[in-house]
Amino acid sequence: MGDTETVEVRGHILDSGILARILDDVLEYGGDYRIERLDVGREHEDESRALLSIGADDAEQLSRILMRLQTHGANAVSPGETVLRAAPGDGVFPDDFYSTTNLATQVRTEGRWVAVDNPEMDCGIVVAADRLSARTVPVSDVRAGDLVVCGADGVRVVQPPAADRDADSFGFMSSSVSSEKPQALLVRQIAEQLRAVKARGEKVLWVGGPALVHTGAAPAMVRLVEAGYVDVLFAGNALAAHDIESALFGTSLGVDLSKGHGVPHGHEHHIRAINKIRAAGSIAKAVSSGVLTGGIMHSLVANDRRFVLVGSVRDDGPLPDVYTDVIDGQRAMRAELPGVGFVIMVATMLHSIATGNILPAAIPLVCVDINPATVTKLADRGSAQATGIVTDIGLFTEQLADELCG
Amino acid sequence: MGDTETVEVRGHILDSGILARILDDVLEYGGDYRIERLDVGREHEDESRALLSIGADDAEQLSRILMRLQTHGANAVSPGETVLRAAPGDGVFPDDFYSTTNLATQVRTEGRWVAVDNPEMDCGIVVAADRLSARTVPVSDVRAGDLVVCGADGVRVVQPPAADRDADSFGFMSSSVSSEKPQALLVRQIAEQLRAVKARGEKVLWVGGPALVHTGAAPAMVRLVEAGYVDVLFAGNALAAHDIESALFGTSLGVDLSKGHGVPHGHEHHIRAINKIRAAGSIAKAVSSGVLTGGIMHSLVANDRRFVLVGSVRDDGPLPDVYTDVIDGQRAMRAELPGVGFVIMVATMLHSIATGNILPAAIPLVCVDINPATVTKLADRGSAQATGIVTDIGLFTEQLADELCG
Amino acid sequence: MGDTETVEVRGHILDSGILARILDDVLEYGGDYRIERLDVGREHEDESRALLSIGADDAEQLSRILMRLQTHGANAVSPGETVLRAAPGDGVFPDDFYSTTNLATQVRTEGRWVAVDNPEMDCGIVVAADRLSARTVPVSDVRAGDLVVCGADGVRVVQPPAADRDADSFGFMSSSVSSEKPQALLVRQIAEQLRAVKARGEKVLWVGGPALVHTGAAPAMVRLVEAGYVDVLFAGNALAAHDIESALFGTSLGVDLSKGHGVPHGHEHHIRAINKIRAAGSIAKAVSSGVLTGGIMHSLVANDRRFVLVGSVRDDGPLPDVYTDVIDGQRAMRAELPGVGFVIMVATMLHSIATGNILPAAIPLVCVDINPATVTKLADRGSAQATGIVTDIGLFTEQLADELCG
Amino acid sequence: MGDTETVEVRGHILDSGILARILDDVLEYGGDYRIERLDVGREHEDESRALLSIGADDAEQLSRILMRLQTHGANAVSPGETVLRAAPGDGVFPDDFYSTTNLATQVRTEGRWVAVDNPEMDCGIVVAADRLSARTVPVSDVRAGDLVVCGADGVRVVQPPAADRDADSFGFMSSSVSSEKPQALLVRQIAEQLRAVKARGEKVLWVGGPALVHTGAAPAMVRLVEAGYVDVLFAGNALAAHDIESALFGTSLGVDLSKGHGVPHGHEHHIRAINKIRAAGSIAKAVSSGVLTGGIMHSLVANDRRFVLVGSVRDDGPLPDVYTDVIDGQRAMRAELPGVGFVIMVATMLHSIATGNILPAAIPLVCVDINPATVTKLADRGSAQATGIVTDIGLFTEQLADELCG
Repeated sequence: MGDTETVEVRGHILDSGILARILDDVLEYGGDYRIERLDVGREHEDESRALLSIGADDAEQLSRILMRLQTHGANAVSPGETVLRAAPGDGVFPDDFYSTTNLATQVRTEGRWVAVDNPEMDCGIVVAADRLSARTVPVSDVRAGDLVVCGADGVRVVQPPAADRDADSFGFMSSSVSSEKPQALLVRQIAEQLRAVKARGEKVLWVGGPALVHTGAAPAMVRLVEAGYVDVLFAGNALAAHDIESALFGTSLGVDLSKGHGVPHGHEHHIRAINKIRAAGSIAKAVSSGVLTGGIMHSLVANDRRFVLVGSVRDDGPLPDVYTDVIDGQRAMRAELPGVGFVIMVATMLHSIATGNILPAAIPLVCVDINPATVTKLADRGSAQATGIVTDIGLFTEQLADELCG
Repeated sequence: MGDTETVEVRGHILDSGILARILDDVLEYGGDYRIERLDVGREHEDESRALLSIGADDAEQLSRILMRLQTHGANAVSPGETVLRAAPGDGVFPDDFYSTTNLATQVRTEGRWVAVDNPEMDCGIVVAADRLSARTVPVSDVRAGDLVVCGADGVRVVQPPAADRDADSFGFMSSSVSSEKPQALLVRQIAEQLRAVKARGEKVLWVGGPALVHTGAAPAMVRLVEAGYVDVLFAGNALAAHDIESALFGTSLGVDLSKGHGVPHGHEHHIRAINKIRAAGSIAKAVSSGVLTGGIMHSLVANDRRFVLVGSVRDDGPLPDVYTDVIDGQRAMRAELPGVGFVIMVATMLHSIATGNILPAAIPLVCVDINPATVTKLADRGSAQATGIVTDIGLFTEQLADELCG
Repeated sequence: MGDTETVEVRGHILDSGILARILDDVLEYGGDYRIERLDVGREHEDESRALLSIGADDAEQLSRILMRLQTHGANAVSPGETVLRAAPGDGVFPDDFYSTTNLATQVRTEGRWVAVDNPEMDCGIVVAADRLSARTVPVSDVRAGDLVVCGADGVRVVQPPAADRDADSFGFMSSSVSSEKPQALLVRQIAEQLRAVKARGEKVLWVGGPALVHTGAAPAMVRLVEAGYVDVLFAGNALAAHDIESALFGTSLGVDLSKGHGVPHGHEHHIRAINKIRAAGSIAKAVSSGVLTGGIMHSLVANDRRFVLVGSVRDDGPLPDVYTDVIDGQRAMRAELPGVGFVIMVATMLHSIATGNILPAAIPLVCVDINPATVTKLADRGSAQATGIVTDIGLFTEQLADELCG
Repeated sequence: MGDTETVEVRGHILDSGILARILDDVLEYGGDYRIERLDVGREHEDESRALLSIGADDAEQLSRILMRLQTHGANAVSPGETVLRAAPGDGVFPDDFYSTTNLATQVRTEGRWVAVDNPEMDCGIVVAADRLSARTVPVSDVRAGDLVVCGADGVRVVQPPAADRDADSFGFMSSSVSSEKPQALLVRQIAEQLRAVKARGEKVLWVGGPALVHTGAAPAMVRLVEAGYVDVLFAGNALAAHDIESALFGTSLGVDLSKGHGVPHGHEHHIRAINKIRAAGSIAKAVSSGVLTGGIMHSLVANDRRFVLVGSVRDDGPLPDVYTDVIDGQRAMRAELPGVGFVIMVATMLHSIATGNILPAAIPLVCVDINPATVTKLADRGSAQATGIVTDIGLFTEQLADELCG
């Protein structure tokens, strides 16, 4: 890389995660780093100190990275002198103005360090004509001709970044579990992973909740089953019962998924559906006897895929295939794990956590839910390998099926 | 319709919404009704009484509707005698078993009304061999040969449904604002409405928040602008600033929407983007001078569409086009309303409520957000014409553009 | 009541819930009503028409009620003439100005009905000096001397309120399940209900999730158990395991509820706690052998209260007292219901729905959760008698214990 | 400390945050650490290696810490041999059993490393009688006499902990922003901070949303104002308008906070309240003229406290004291910052972010909301010094006032 600069950062930079964030930001802004020196605070009350060499393609990129790192309290070792340029108009900064942090800051001008008044983020720094003072100015308040600090030279953050607190973790959140992401792209990435898993001859395990049916995703799921992207399904009584109810009663009565009226909860169709399967003996027997002719469960049976349904205390019925003893159910789930190379969890907190509990950390998993809390809770309970996607189940599954099944 | 039956319901059925729910359910189950008589409680403490004639295509459908109406406390006027059938096996009810409510219930057998023990919903009713008692039995506990009540004949609910409380409104919720709906269908319905609005020569008003950009929906929005489905955009400084930031810095630095890394908040790109437009004078001037060459705002300018950006106290900058005085902003928004035939609000609570405040009730509006609270709050504040969709913004907009722009 | 007026409303007022809302509003504004006439649309496509006599204490109150009812499309039968008063200053309406709806409106002046331009809610109506036109004006735009319509006389809403759509249900939401309520008051109301239930000699059933322990509510729960306000507890393995873990390991290690560090999920203390109780044989034996000396479960055993723990597929262990077969668990729960007069559900969706499933509608229940979705889902599934409270579990339980236990 | 052991961890332990987590856990479990050696991967693709000396009070505590550190892939340098004990009964482990991670693991027995089958978290390890194999066993499946690995000696995790992904940040979440915390304790901590701030002669700045009024917290806020714990209030039109509405109309009409009916949104009282203050000229004049005699705003005026109200595009009216130009509003807010030593933000995303934008990082702030998203978004936008509390506003404020005002 063309340009380099050495920066220094001190404080509780290891346990607070600050160093990790600095290294991340360098890469994200397109630069590279080398840790020249790391003096570690031996005991937990000691401060640490890191010297990092930062490289960039050109001076402009390097300048941007250095400005960015100051938000974490990392200053250049040889700060130089500030570059001052006149504001080109009222309410306008020069193009390469230094964008402030909310940390206490100094600027070096005519060989002297001058403290900047009123720390405030996302502003510029205006140096007085006599070079003896400097203040933070929002863009709307700058006046034509004001001397504005440009680039990162001659600027240093003097307030050590805070440590020994949890709050730092805030910054991570949105990047891991967020609905503010390019979702269409994520769908394509998952499709690629599924193709790779199948190419390696491994199994794909789905864990699903009844919202798969309520959001109209069942036809897309059926396509995925038929295309070979669902080897095993873990679910509860509700997913299977609502899927079967929809297959048995979907058109004969007014409650019609295809009209988009939504599903009135608490009506009795699901218990009638369950009773019919109980009368048949099992889901597979209902398929072979022609009672059940459509839906996700039918498709799993017809394509010789595996499923494990484990009951919960809120179940009606349940279906005859459901393990009513949860410890037996866990054993049945464990028995399906060998050969699984990818897990995708959709719209169920209960069965997702249950699966996370028994899953080796080496198996990658994706958790998809419209509720961020589901994704967070899963990872919270120890499944650190989880990737979370907060999105609409119906649109997600349909788009994934389009991607994989053409 | 082939079969009819007269049912009666008493109580606070008007102000509690029970009557409304009964009528809804008849239609949803494919039947029809006639209100034969409605004796209204004159004062608010009086009970009311309704006699309804219920019609259905055949006896089986009628029986299902009558069973359903009993969950609201509506009984047949001539209840007849219960039909009893032996359970065909352990844990299996006869096919047309009466599915219970959780209200106090009686069954008529051998000319006598017998109270049913232990009200519980979604169970069956088993009558003792001596016909002197009856009890509620979950499907898992029925034994082969038990005498199970079938159909709705000879069953009546004796507990009046509760009134004078708000809780009834619960039942409505999921049908109006829910993420458990066939979303792909809703997208198609909105596409149809947009086509009809354009065919009538009316304008489509969009109200948007910055998540439109963060979720990667900007290219889809640009397609919708170019295809003529966005006549006016109401937004704040943030949507425009992030859109412009993405157009100006999208590829030059490591923070790259196309790689799916997500957008680190708090970095300085947005304030640099704002400064560049301030230097140009306005968004339109930045377009004409070649500074701004892509994104939603560029597309609106290039296609001669209208936009109104109104500021808020949390804005950085702001962009020169933003009304910093909110009352001036409201006036500018009002000036765009004539000719608007449809409003679509995406991912912004602030501007959605602001638009709802000034909108005539006659203009239909759709509110799309991943957060149910946004949709609810909007309607709560008086915009009763709102249809709410809880879904992923990115996938929604992409699918809508696919639907409309081919 | 001193003053009365007759109003009329037409349209799909029964099935849309509009009539119910009108009657509610009259009472909420302190008035009273008499339904003079109700012509019911017999078939579902017919419109209905209601004539209501509205009473109020004085003319000012009556005027306010009439203005309110116009938001639902209800107009006075004898509208009279508008009262016009000059605005007392720029940006100020007369005190009793008519506050607009967003429906198409007319005003009667000099014997003629004049349409009001630009429907917009929460504005005033200014009549032109020549009395030939009228327009909607926001308070910030009125000028001193403008002729402003005051009171409800001579104003009518000509647009029928919308029907045949679900959106009406929006308005109900916030009143039933909301975090924007005076919560301290709700706590006192529940305390009163609990005292009344105990005075009647009935049992109080609690249904709880592990957040009861995580939010620090366990000491408050223990006080409630000791004071006799917890007769039965339904829960899962997690509540009991975390409660026992906290009792066994609360002070010996650094993970300390009393220091407020929060509970790291995924550590192994809970599985050690479970193992200790498994070694003792049961929770009761762990109490009698002195292994377990504190917490909620200890308190239930020591005070001879009942509990039913039912397992789920995500359980570790489980504790020896847990029903691993969910159907057995449901039977054990049913066996505890006789004598229960009040149910309070706290911070658990799974066990709340399970309890709702088996509960007669006649038993009042309160559902408390910080997540509105839990409350909504419960009621959605048929437990219409539920009252929902969205609040913080820890503060709620502590305040309830303060209220009841002094 | 009495006992020590040296552990080693390799991999991307700096940028993944793993090292930070290890150090945290040692302290949380009551131990201490010394970083003996840290070989840093110089470039970002290099692995790092850390040698840590872990100290504990006694062997049992040390053993627990070592077991815990293995969940992060840190193994003892001198692992020794496993201690095996016979399970004391069916379904019961020995007291000091090794609790597993979900990472690939080996145990050392008779001088040989044996791989453990089926990694699964929260289980035990059973070694075969011939010592040639070992498997992961859930507590429910262990049989009396099985040889169970106890303590951390002779156990090592061979799978390096994952790196170069964001998912690790999951683990932090619940500790920073969570509703599952002992909230009563947090209230006491904030009360202590407020007392300390006042003792230092600094100002307390509150930033509030209208839910402060809707949740019934106004009387508690008034007590806090009178006791001197509210020096400045930043808010919007809505908080002030609803507070004044409640003071002016609270008892004269049926919409009554004291009865707990909740506030119907969209009614016209707030616009009448705004009009009355507009007629008076300002809030202060309405107080001095006797129009406004209660509520938060009255209390601020009567006690000579400062407030800055800044408008937004959704405002009705607004009140005459509201800055309608948001940039002017920002300037007015900045002018109040000198002397502020503590900021507390309650129930408002808009004004909280606006305040966060202009606040130096050195001023501690607490953000209180029932919606976790508000707290997260604030910190996300750069206010890393924020402490988030997810709780009920009404109960929180009442409890804080009880704590501070007796």
